[in-house]
Amino acid sequence: MSEHAAASRLCFPGLCFLLQVLLILLFAVWVRYSPEGSPGPCPPPLNCSRRSQDPNFLQPRFRDVHVQVLLSFGLLVAFLSRCGPGSAAIIILITAFSIQWAVLIQGMLYFSLDGKISVGAQSLVRADFCTAAVLISTGALLGRVNPVQMLLLALLEVTLCTLNEFILLSLMGVSDTGGSLTVHTFGAYFGLMVSRLLYQPHKDKRKREEQQDKGHQTGAFAVVGTIYLWIFWPSSISTTTVHHNAENWAVLNSYFSLVASTVSTFILSPLLYEESTPRLVQIQDATLAAMAVMGMAGEMLLTPFGALIAGFLVGLISSLGFRFFTPVLHSKLKIQDTCGVHNTHGLPGVLGALLGTLLTLLATADTFGYRLELVFPLVAQGSRTITDQALLQLGALPLTLLLATLGGCITGALLKINVLRCCPAALYKENPGLREVPEEGSDPSASGKEELGSSTLV
Amino acid sequence: MSEHAAASRLCFPGLCFLLQVLLILLFAVWVRYSPEGSPGPCPPPLNCSRRSQDPNFLQPRFRDVHVQVLLSFGLLVAFLSRCGPGSAAIIILITAFSIQWAVLIQGMLYFSLDGKISVGAQSLVRADFCTAAVLISTGALLGRVNPVQMLLLALLEVTLCTLNEFILLSLMGVSDTGGSLTVHTFGAYFGLMVSRLLYQPHKDKRKREEQQDKGHQTGAFAVVGTIYLWIFWPSSISTTTVHHNAENWAVLNSYFSLVASTVSTFILSPLLYEESTPRLVQIQDATLAAMAVMGMAGEMLLTPFGALIAGFLVGLISSLGFRFFTPVLHSKLKIQDTCGVHNTHGLPGVLGALLGTLLTLLATADTFGYRLELVFPLVAQGSRTITDQALLQLGALPLTLLLATLGGCITGALLKINVLRCCPAALYKENPGLREVPEEGSDPSASGKEELGSSTLV
Amino acid sequence: MSEHAAASRLCFPGLCFLLQVLLILLFAVWVRYSPEGSPGPCPPPLNCSRRSQDPNFLQPRFRDVHVQVLLSFGLLVAFLSRCGPGSAAIIILITAFSIQWAVLIQGMLYFSLDGKISVGAQSLVRADFCTAAVLISTGALLGRVNPVQMLLLALLEVTLCTLNEFILLSLMGVSDTGGSLTVHTFGAYFGLMVSRLLYQPHKDKRKREEQQDKGHQTGAFAVVGTIYLWIFWPSSISTTTVHHNAENWAVLNSYFSLVASTVSTFILSPLLYEESTPRLVQIQDATLAAMAVMGMAGEMLLTPFGALIAGFLVGLISSLGFRFFTPVLHSKLKIQDTCGVHNTHGLPGVLGALLGTLLTLLATADTFGYRLELVFPLVAQGSRTITDQALLQLGALPLTLLLATLGGCITGALLKINVLRCCPAALYKENPGLREVPEEGSDPSASGKEELGSSTLV
Repeated sequence: MSEHAAASRLCFPGLCFLLQVLLILLFAVWVRYSPEGSPGPCPPPLNCSRRSQDPNFLQPRFRDVHVQVLLSFGLLVAFLSRCGPGSAAIIILITAFSIQWAVLIQGMLYFSLDGKISVGAQSLVRADFCTAAVLISTGALLGRVNPVQMLLLALLEVTLCTLNEFILLSLMGVSDTGGSLTVHTFGAYFGLMVSRLLYQPHKDKRKREEQQDKGHQTGAFAVVGTIYLWIFWPSSISTTTVHHNAENWAVLNSYFSLVASTVSTFILSPLLYEESTPRLVQIQDATLAAMAVMGMAGEMLLTPFGALIAGFLVGLISSLGFRFFTPVLHSKLKIQDTCGVHNTHGLPGVLGALLGTLLTLLATADTFGYRLELVFPLVAQGSRTITDQALLQLGALPLTLLLATLGGCITGALLKINVLRCCPAALYKENPGLREVPEEGSDPSASGKEELGSSTLV
Repeated sequence: MSEHAAASRLCFPGLCFLLQVLLILLFAVWVRYSPEGSPGPCPPPLNCSRRSQDPNFLQPRFRDVHVQVLLSFGLLVAFLSRCGPGSAAIIILITAFSIQWAVLIQGMLYFSLDGKISVGAQSLVRADFCTAAVLISTGALLGRVNPVQMLLLALLEVTLCTLNEFILLSLMGVSDTGGSLTVHTFGAYFGLMVSRLLYQPHKDKRKREEQQDKGHQTGAFAVVGTIYLWIFWPSSISTTTVHHNAENWAVLNSYFSLVASTVSTFILSPLLYEESTPRLVQIQDATLAAMAVMGMAGEMLLTPFGALIAGFLVGLISSLGFRFFTPVLHSKLKIQDTCGVHNTHGLPGVLGALLGTLLTLLATADTFGYRLELVFPLVAQGSRTITDQALLQLGALPLTLLLATLGGCITGALLKINVLRCCPAALYKENPGLREVPEEGSDPSASGKEELGSSTLV
Repeated sequence: MSEHAAASRLCFPGLCFLLQVLLILLFAVWVRYSPEGSPGPCPPPLNCSRRSQDPNFLQPRFRDVHVQVLLSFGLLVAFLSRCGPGSAAIIILITAFSIQWAVLIQGMLYFSLDGKISVGAQSLVRADFCTAAVLISTGALLGRVNPVQMLLLALLEVTLCTLNEFILLSLMGVSDTGGSLTVHTFGAYFGLMVSRLLYQPHKDKRKREEQQDKGHQTGAFAVVGTIYLWIFWPSSISTTTVHHNAENWAVLNSYFSLVASTVSTFILSPLLYEESTPRLVQIQDATLAAMAVMGMAGEMLLTPFGALIAGFLVGLISSLGFRFFTPVLHSKLKIQDTCGVHNTHGLPGVLGALLGTLLTLLATADTFGYRLELVFPLVAQGSRTITDQALLQLGALPLTLLLATLGGCITGALLKINVLRCCPAALYKENPGLREVPEEGSDPSASGKEELGSSTLV
């Protein structure tokens, strides 16, 4: 191995080392555990009215979430069915960095107390939502960026995503507990813009050819991914909603949406492709879309059939998007979308925001009852009319799109800097990602040929 | 593709579309969220005595079940090890339809309020139990029915299963929270009767040959399935039991039963087959049988060793059934049983019901203590003697068997109608189920040969 | 098959049968459900001060753990990535026996009441922790011991592990809720000693060659294993900590430790092996090490950055151990370590114990506040100074090491007895473990060649 190669081989681990040490130092200076767990005899009073302004007053619901459900890992499993386990290692690294960084950044905006960042279970849950946005962006780019670029993207996106969330939830008082806008829409359009700027026609053709000969395990991964999403995703939504009763409906609406969108895959797939039943990845995509559309509206829907209709339509739209819109995106707009995040997160997120706005307009103290204070605390207090709230909910959509595309442009431009692009590219090629740890004396290159997914990350 | 083929290709998605629109309309007219979540300061009073008559008075325990555990998905994973991921798509569709239909049908019988069906978390849990019965039936038929037949079967079975449950739980006051009778026995014998009526000797021989050359992934799927059942199944039983303390014992008994039946596989398998350790699917079958036998008796067993004995014996019986009874079932009675549901659900369910009857006879206020009111509310109130209760528990068994076989006969006869049998058969053959979504420009048929499980559904 | 072979074929199932019947008899005589669930209006008073002496006074937290998380199954999944699904069957059997035996043995020491062993949810959780120690030992031996030897090992180790736990927690009053010493250190060094005594140079060379040509599925299993550990392991730690607030920090610290140790894999792997990103098994090993180091210190760490540093360092040490220490262990000390448990459990466990001692020394009523009573009840009561507590925490480490190595020596010597070694060896070779259940008429040996993992257990 030449000297240059050896130097570039040290580049990525060196970067990881520096970043992790920096994070530890920042944590050491600023981050402390929150004293939320003070053993007072009575639980903190439910002060719902301040919820949307100050997340610090959220009930620490995480305490009940014995099985903390990593939203991000649902996405990881979902991506596996398209990209193979070869990309899993890098996704796990991104997750590990993003969670730490998001705890820091979100802590500065939300949870600071006497100059220190106060960390509790709730901040880990919020950090995980932010990480989910990063992973959605990653889904559009998988296979075309190297780890160093990924790391930089994660750092930048976490910062911007938190900023967007802060503006929406705290400054504007928008209700978006499931993250239709803050997670799904932001993540998808951010990733698509970065993908546009990194467009390289030649490299992509090669990739596609290589992709042809994997796909053996995709069915199995898609089954596991679908089951993971059905079981854990509705539960993970419940970790961000405040009140037991409000939570209930968000979870139930998510289920109904999920069920209906699954059916819609079976309706469109035989018409779009010449097959009788859909492939398993298509079902998985429909479940992802169904969750994205329920992010904002899940708390606001008052009837099960509303969730059924929303899920049904978004399942159809997502399927149509894969068939007709993704090719247009690629050929006309030169945006590649490895895992189809525009159809599973972007478009459903936007539709979810529009649905949420509509439902806000229809909300009255009569139909919502006591739930009005939980979902729209400012309206319940009388400091804001329902029309104002609806306008703000609507206004949050273009604002999110603007921030996401702008941020994506800046990030994409930064990722194109030569140093980043070249540095670990040489070694990236040799990453198999899937080999077992070599026993001493064994030759690692010998078994490299039969690896699944070995070509995924080239 | 000929005109006829094109027409038949539209038949199945059209049916799905019509059914889903019909379901949405029915939901729009009748189904509303239950006002159970009214924010009154005090929880609804525990009125255990009315439990078995009126499930509406069940404590909405689901609220605590942050991770809602889909029983049906455990079965899905279990079937994967026998049938490959090729059949997963259709099972997910059946699940999606059955849950919606079961919410409707069960709502009509149980949860109606002012002419509307009141839906809450509890009704989703009950719908999932009903869906599990449908999937058990499906397990007997996988690979020999087409999707249209499956859909019809699901609609009919959900209706009959709910009717059976209503008669047993509400009219007769039988205690069967884990569904030994209502889920396992009903599902298994219903599916076996349908299988009998659809018997086609020639087709089946071909299928078996095709099945020979898959099985690579079965080991991996069986591991995942067994782990899923160990972790989630006992928890899912806890969602239907009323009281914290009673729940505890049902879960613990299920664990002990599971542990002992696992051991029994290791005892019989070397004697029955010429191998030293059992295959993983056999272990998985034993865990399924162990859960089925604890369905009714789980709440009633007062000692851990009772659960150990029951699990141990049912594990032996299930293994013996696979070796000796399934061939007889096939050759003499002309009943095929793809996933062996008679050994994993049918027989263990019947044994569980008999065990439950025995335990009911032995129940006294002395041994049960405060638990008597939870398990046998009518006996605790004094409106029924323990002998009456035992007789009713025993009588529920032949009734369930009668309803299941009768219903299976009718359903099987309906499924044999020519229109249903032929319509999507042609296209069904081309369903690979496992291919990845084709990139535009790629030829889907080119990669079709290497598919796992592609022949499963023919 | 010769008469001798037939006889030896019956040996293992016969042993299983005898053991299970014996266990049922012992359960029948001694074990009863605990009356903990008495429906008194008020919960049992929180008597934290007696916690470390008498686990019977632990709050039955299990009641809330709707999804009981089997720690052992996390280990099972983790081992799959190294040993293939072929060894899963035997691990499941070991788990099933160990849980029953641990309930008995632990019940005798802790939960006996009027001459009966009182079993509740808490005892199942403790039994599972003990089973985890057995599985860790198994991880060092997988592929080199036959099932009969494994069974004997499980019986002996459960007894010794419980004894060690009893001495540490009840007699010495050491705080070790996550099991850094009682589970990880004990299990690892016990297994390594047994491995030393069973050292057979020739057999092992053959094994390694056979291992070369599997490894296809290892990547997929490592992904599943890592996800399982991230999601379930921190939760399972929460089942043993007493108080809601104390629990919170143990879980959070575990998460932070896990995140940092994941990053450290990405730093060292390119330096140690000639690859840019680590293999997935390496990430999984780092997560295991991160949990082991937080076993004792998780409750005591008062700042998130402490957990980050600990996780980061232990991740580095574990990676270095795999590269440099495991070969030395093998060549110099003649200790083989199939799954590398010394790096993932042994060393991190010891480091965790040292870290716990350090943190105990630094603990003051000021910094700990109300948590002092939860973590060090005897100190809070004033019956012990903080220095005494730290000395006891430190003294627990050599004691555990002594008991583990001594126990391992005795067990290893017993396992070398000829009868055990030969009896089922012949049949053990023919165990494929992965084949599907044969359809009647099919030839099981025909499909045996393509089996994955078929040679794992030879």
